[in-house]
Amino acid sequence: MSSPSTKVSLSTYLFLRLKEIGVHHVFGIPGDYVLPLFDELIDQDHGVDHVLVCNELNGAYAADGYSKMSGFGAVAVTYGVGSLSTANAVGGAYADSTPMIVIAGTPTVEVLNTPTAHKLHHVLDTNFNACLDSFRPITAASHRLTRLETAPAEIDKLIRTALQDKKPVYLEIPYDLQLAEVDLPVEPFDLLLRQSSRVNLKEALCHAVGLLNSSKTRCVVTGHLLQREKLIEDTENLIDDLNASVATTFVGKIPTFEGHPNAAGLYMGAMSCDATRTIVETADLAIVAGMTLNEFDTGIFTSKIGANQDCIWMDFDQVIINNQVYGQVYLRDFLPELAKEAELDQVGTLDIPKDARLFHFQRSDAFKPTDAKLTIDRLFIQLANYAKPGDVMYGDTGGYINAAQAEYPAGVDIHGCGNYGSLGAGFALFCGGIFTYEAAGRRCYMITGDGAFHMTAQELSTLIKYETDCVVFILDNKGYGAERQIYPGKERSYNNTPLWNYEELGSAFGGVEGKTCKSFVARTEKDMAKVLDKLDEPTGVNIVRILLDPWDTAAFNVKFSEALRH
Amino acid sequence: MSSPSTKVSLSTYLFLRLKEIGVHHVFGIPGDYVLPLFDELIDQDHGVDHVLVCNELNGAYAADGYSKMSGFGAVAVTYGVGSLSTANAVGGAYADSTPMIVIAGTPTVEVLNTPTAHKLHHVLDTNFNACLDSFRPITAASHRLTRLETAPAEIDKLIRTALQDKKPVYLEIPYDLQLAEVDLPVEPFDLLLRQSSRVNLKEALCHAVGLLNSSKTRCVVTGHLLQREKLIEDTENLIDDLNASVATTFVGKIPTFEGHPNAAGLYMGAMSCDATRTIVETADLAIVAGMTLNEFDTGIFTSKIGANQDCIWMDFDQVIINNQVYGQVYLRDFLPELAKEAELDQVGTLDIPKDARLFHFQRSDAFKPTDAKLTIDRLFIQLANYAKPGDVMYGDTGGYINAAQAEYPAGVDIHGCGNYGSLGAGFALFCGGIFTYEAAGRRCYMITGDGAFHMTAQELSTLIKYETDCVVFILDNKGYGAERQIYPGKERSYNNTPLWNYEELGSAFGGVEGKTCKSFVARTEKDMAKVLDKLDEPTGVNIVRILLDPWDTAAFNVKFSEALRH
Repeated sequence: MSSPSTKVSLSTYLFLRLKEIGVHHVFGIPGDYVLPLFDELIDQDHGVDHVLVCNELNGAYAADGYSKMSGFGAVAVTYGVGSLSTANAVGGAYADSTPMIVIAGTPTVEVLNTPTAHKLHHVLDTNFNACLDSFRPITAASHRLTRLETAPAEIDKLIRTALQDKKPVYLEIPYDLQLAEVDLPVEPFDLLLRQSSRVNLKEALCHAVGLLNSSKTRCVVTGHLLQREKLIEDTENLIDDLNASVATTFVGKIPTFEGHPNAAGLYMGAMSCDATRTIVETADLAIVAGMTLNEFDTGIFTSKIGANQDCIWMDFDQVIINNQVYGQVYLRDFLPELAKEAELDQVGTLDIPKDARLFHFQRSDAFKPTDAKLTIDRLFIQLANYAKPGDVMYGDTGGYINAAQAEYPAGVDIHGCGNYGSLGAGFALFCGGIFTYEAAGRRCYMITGDGAFHMTAQELSTLIKYETDCVVFILDNKGYGAERQIYPGKERSYNNTPLWNYEELGSAFGGVEGKTCKSFVARTEKDMAKVLDKLDEPTGVNIVRILLDPWDTAAFNVKFSEALRH
Repeated sequence: MSSPSTKVSLSTYLFLRLKEIGVHHVFGIPGDYVLPLFDELIDQDHGVDHVLVCNELNGAYAADGYSKMSGFGAVAVTYGVGSLSTANAVGGAYADSTPMIVIAGTPTVEVLNTPTAHKLHHVLDTNFNACLDSFRPITAASHRLTRLETAPAEIDKLIRTALQDKKPVYLEIPYDLQLAEVDLPVEPFDLLLRQSSRVNLKEALCHAVGLLNSSKTRCVVTGHLLQREKLIEDTENLIDDLNASVATTFVGKIPTFEGHPNAAGLYMGAMSCDATRTIVETADLAIVAGMTLNEFDTGIFTSKIGANQDCIWMDFDQVIINNQVYGQVYLRDFLPELAKEAELDQVGTLDIPKDARLFHFQRSDAFKPTDAKLTIDRLFIQLANYAKPGDVMYGDTGGYINAAQAEYPAGVDIHGCGNYGSLGAGFALFCGGIFTYEAAGRRCYMITGDGAFHMTAQELSTLIKYETDCVVFILDNKGYGAERQIYPGKERSYNNTPLWNYEELGSAFGGVEGKTCKSFVARTEKDMAKVLDKLDEPTGVNIVRILLDPWDTAAFNVKFSEALRH
């Protein structure tokens, strides 16, 4: 028999488990079906804090952004109106392999299980399963707790599924179970990760070592799954031991490897700098580490990796060596093993030509600010030079497409909207990421286009309310710039968003200008240089409105937008 | 053979059909998978205009709000990121029987139909059906066009389903079909509404007429389906012919009946004014017209309609007379027939006691503005007196819960978030409704709580951009007021939203203060009186910040919030 002191509410059980896996904040909006859970969230001593966001979609984006920095994210909402609002953020987390949980309160178990003609509020007529069913195609698991006895184990299983698959999960907790008591967890949370096939792993390793032996030049291409699986250090070891060159990718832009002495630039197939493409695609051996076959990383599927070279492709749960598929071999098992083997291997030859141009925007590009109006081509060199080790940077799709082409020093963490490319998500992801322990004490900033920013702009008030220190760079080109380039020169009214006065937003959203928020407008390179000087160690919420010509674009972007013309 | 001039693109075909059913505006955000459709939307002469909103969720709310005024609404978005963003608005339209269509562009038919390992952008890994499947549980139909030959008929069928069922539908149109040519429609759009069972209808009518003959006092209770089915005039005739009393409801707050000489107030079960409840529940015969058995209209299921009286309940597709169910008898068929029969019937006795209090906030309530701080109880009398015939008013859930208790004159159109009660939807619904032809030239305004307003606030910039004339009343009580009352007096941090300076928002969102936007702050009754005087014929976008005590609430609301404690 348990003594009373070893009992906790089911809500607190959930928060304790989340805490164990590094979740210190739950985002979300309360509502009557989920109030007991929210009460437990703010009243109990489980080490998890509530962050109130402005709406549920933004809250779910924030949970995604939190997970991208820390490994897991959580958002709590009410039934129906709350749940369904989160769907697009859940889709994004799915597409970019980000584990997170949406927690929704529901009517009581009895109400849910009793057929009725009554139409409860927040319900689609009398169908209590609508949300559960709707989330099934866009999550790794969509689940409702209905039995208290098994609820703790079911919570563990659900979190495990998210962490195992690196995907979002959806959980409904009925009203009457939220405060129901369960045993305090005695055993620590057990991931019970699925195991790689030992046979396949061994065979793949043997095959891979053969290719290491037979190759002189190798290039490692790094993808976002290295972040998700926390394999960046292992990958560094592999690169160093092999003296391999290393290229980053769009979704997996990891400055650790851009600042590495063997850096070969950012790879995106035909959209890469010429030297980068050559290095990646003509090395004797390409080693693809945690990059998926996604559209952005492959440069709209123009990648020729493996076409004329040997290739070890480590995907999430399989390894493909040339045309041989080794199933049920996890990246997280294989990569460390390969790194170990590499120690025994001969060091290869580095194949990076001297003075090769590896990034469209390089930190070494001569930059002396002039009185000229800002242009994207020059701005992103300036921003690349603003970056310093320790920075945490998020980008929304448009801003990120450009930022990705800039060279960043090791020690910066960068996150964007990935291959899902949901406009507006980036700013809300940032509003999540900034709360992580991993971001604490670091300089945090965000680059976003204006059209994207409009979608989730109210979260600026959340950043102000919670007294964060950060910078929001808003590229003001009066609309959807990336989309304009799909039909260059053709005026399309649907690309012209409303024109906001961004420098007034901080105060309108409750900031005190000059104190809790500071607003800047930059039109010329010199303006921008002055602003960046002032923001070396930003305090409060800083809003930088960067005025750009609506038709200005980077040379890189022209190529990219063309390719999106289908 | 058709001549070339009788061909139109499939996109234009769709817009022509929408135009036929009264859709003159399509809301939405462009994206690369849907650009050809957007080009057709802005370039072709089909009579439908594009309204650019700030994000897709708000666009779908706007389509819902447009439909609530006009009968149908449409929003166009790109694949995945756009589609999934609309889910909650779709859920709301479903719950409150509002027909609308979400149109999503997708990759080409060939891409969709060819199995691939490629992960395209905006896609959940390689699952092209994720959105289609996810929308199935929350729509009347979730459908993708893939064959040009049958596409026009499929579009007709989908629109028909929405109109027949009064529910939202989801439509995917692949990129390559958006400009593909089809025949210009020759035949006008045919609704092909499902027919009532003639046998059941006749029997139900016979049963109903018997009750008309045997009753002296009758009360008609009006629901939102009367708006959806455009049966308000028929219902007026029924009331007049019977000399019945008439009560409105929360979801179906139709001032035509509140300004009627036989008005009996707003019915919400135990939350009604005493006289209203008595009139409704003790008439010899209750005639429920288009009200569903939903939580808000029944006063959290405290309604006793039919318990101690005869009752004719006309639901959407069935008529229930006392305990007898007549299936497959549509409201739209039955109600006009009953109205015809009623002409032959004896006029009944009106049972409304003299001086009965019928609304919590009555226009006749003596109101002389004082220097006292504004309170909800007094404010809504003031707002009820502001109303005049011809007004179009939308409310968000919190604002609407109070506004619903106020008496409005005939000739006002009122819409809210209904039984779904999605916070934040109301303002975006309003941003849709204001574009309808039905709202043209009329005074349009919106009442919203601050917490709800935060969720969709950026659409203020849409109202400014499109140079609308309107008023947005924001109840600033520093958080989720309705939720505070669930635990009265208990300070809960999760109810405290950021504090905005609403009077600065218009300019921040691109307005010119004093010209395209005007901002007001009211703290006392006299302040409010002055503001309302100035807004008799509002021009531009007017923002009224109404300062209220965080713990202030209406007497009515205390009862209501208590009932939501589960």
